[in-house]
Amino acid sequence: MSSEFELIDRHFVRPTPQAVLGPGDDCALLRPSPGMELAATTDMLVAGTHFFADTDPFQLGWKTLAVNVSDLAAMGARPRWALLAGSLPEAGEAWIGAFSRGIFACAGRYGVDLVGGDMARGPLNLCVTALGEVPAGEALRRDGARAGDDVWVSGRPGLAALGLAHLQGRIALPDDLAASCVGLLQKPFPRVELGMALRQRKLARSAIDVSDGLLADIGHIAERSALDAEIFVARLPPPPENADAGLARECQLAGGDDYELAFSAAAEKRGELSALAAELDLPLWRIGRFAAAGRGEVRLIGERGEPLAAGAKGFDHFGQ
Amino acid sequence: MSSEFELIDRHFVRPTPQAVLGPGDDCALLRPSPGMELAATTDMLVAGTHFFADTDPFQLGWKTLAVNVSDLAAMGARPRWALLAGSLPEAGEAWIGAFSRGIFACAGRYGVDLVGGDMARGPLNLCVTALGEVPAGEALRRDGARAGDDVWVSGRPGLAALGLAHLQGRIALPDDLAASCVGLLQKPFPRVELGMALRQRKLARSAIDVSDGLLADIGHIAERSALDAEIFVARLPPPPENADAGLARECQLAGGDDYELAFSAAAEKRGELSALAAELDLPLWRIGRFAAAGRGEVRLIGERGEPLAAGAKGFDHFGQ
Repeated sequence: MSSEFELIDRHFVRPTPQAVLGPGDDCALLRPSPGMELAATTDMLVAGTHFFADTDPFQLGWKTLAVNVSDLAAMGARPRWALLAGSLPEAGEAWIGAFSRGIFACAGRYGVDLVGGDMARGPLNLCVTALGEVPAGEALRRDGARAGDDVWVSGRPGLAALGLAHLQGRIALPDDLAASCVGLLQKPFPRVELGMALRQRKLARSAIDVSDGLLADIGHIAERSALDAEIFVARLPPPPENADAGLARECQLAGGDDYELAFSAAAEKRGELSALAAELDLPLWRIGRFAAAGRGEVRLIGERGEPLAAGAKGFDHFGQ
Repeated sequence: MSSEFELIDRHFVRPTPQAVLGPGDDCALLRPSPGMELAATTDMLVAGTHFFADTDPFQLGWKTLAVNVSDLAAMGARPRWALLAGSLPEAGEAWIGAFSRGIFACAGRYGVDLVGGDMARGPLNLCVTALGEVPAGEALRRDGARAGDDVWVSGRPGLAALGLAHLQGRIALPDDLAASCVGLLQKPFPRVELGMALRQRKLARSAIDVSDGLLADIGHIAERSALDAEIFVARLPPPPENADAGLARECQLAGGDDYELAFSAAAEKRGELSALAAELDLPLWRIGRFAAAGRGEVRLIGERGEPLAAGAKGFDHFGQ
């Protein structure tokens, strides 16, 4: 049996050119860039709650970092550093090696140095803290939306939740669709380029990553901005053709785990946002608008302008 | 049942005067001080591995943050910010409230703002990432010891491990001693003032916090500094009078969980270090020296200069 230190050395220590001092000391030492604010976030993934214990370890490694990088993306920050803490039921080296390759694949894709960590025995639990940088005062916060702003969302929200329903056996998707939905669930691509472009070009006034569910996350922006929001069903991305339409809609509105960005933007930015979508090869959907001062209510509006019941609002670990 | 968001709001959101933006957004926003490096560390505490599941929640809250603050202390850094991620089997509010009071008591004592976090359902697991600041180039690293440096350790290493043995029923300590040992185990006081003084007054050349066990942690300094070390039994802090002498010695050398600082210092600093001990009302023990170039071996030297077998070297989650 390898020791904790040997395992860490072998699988989790790689060069950290962005750090003054990387893994192996009591702390990592990092040199923040002058004039920048530090964006800091932490997310814990628990076996049985956030993922199946038999999830492919490469993809799990990728996702463990990706969900944190997604929070940096939602602030318009540039990802720079991460720390990993993990509790593992057994030190199976093949599993650890694949997990390590997954997390470093994600780190390489998004320019992150893994600068420190901790490892212990226990029920499978993975916790990453990610640090990024954003010019002082320019971060995309949740509280910046204004009445009249458009509501936008990137990509194909809801497909990850369809993939989960498929894995749970609640639905049976056709093979092609199942592969793409499960792929998005297990290996999400945080929208770092989008978040940075929205911030650099001053296109968005607020942003959030869609992790709890589209309506719930738009509600978080609305609440923090003291507004209400209206989402128009007719403007939502079309559901996949070969999945149950009702379930696909529910997944889209309340599914979570998408790691797309939802954001608010002034109406005069529509043209620039369409151009950005083309530039990034990433669909951007204008799905609604923020309405005059409110308390964070999100109203779903039907094809004929009628109010619809929104149903499940999103994911909450301790709610009903 | 309260929701995840309500629980977080009620128990984990307090003013964060040191942050640009505290909890409630995708990321916290922090403004690093000019000219400072950021020290970053993460530690995960797992029920059944690091603590008993029925540990008093106030003390557990304190310790969850304290073990991270101790890593900052070992670098000579000033603690500033922390993020908390937790997985809880059930959202018992009395437990959460007491845990919260414990972590904020520690945060207040050491000047830390809790700026963000994450909470989920699952087996009890607590993960803190702590961030501190240290003037660029001045951190106390493990690789700075030089041949001829004295080896020092603060406080009373080994008492926490005695407390653990008592709680496990392996020994029965007298009531007074049990109370103080269990207290040190469950509510350690990280040596922030000591670490900062060692760094500011240029008294130490390297430091580490004693979490794996005294010999193991001195070995970490020795290995990183490419030296060996000699520890003189006669110079170790005297064991408590009313505990088994052999067990007390084993706990002292290999116990871990002490969160004292071990450090190296040039011989000419002995006088200043004695003065510092008096100033901080904290014993500092000069217990050995670092010896010419080596590979991190730590030799235990008996009362008559004879080599002793060191026994268990410390705690390793995956080793034998």
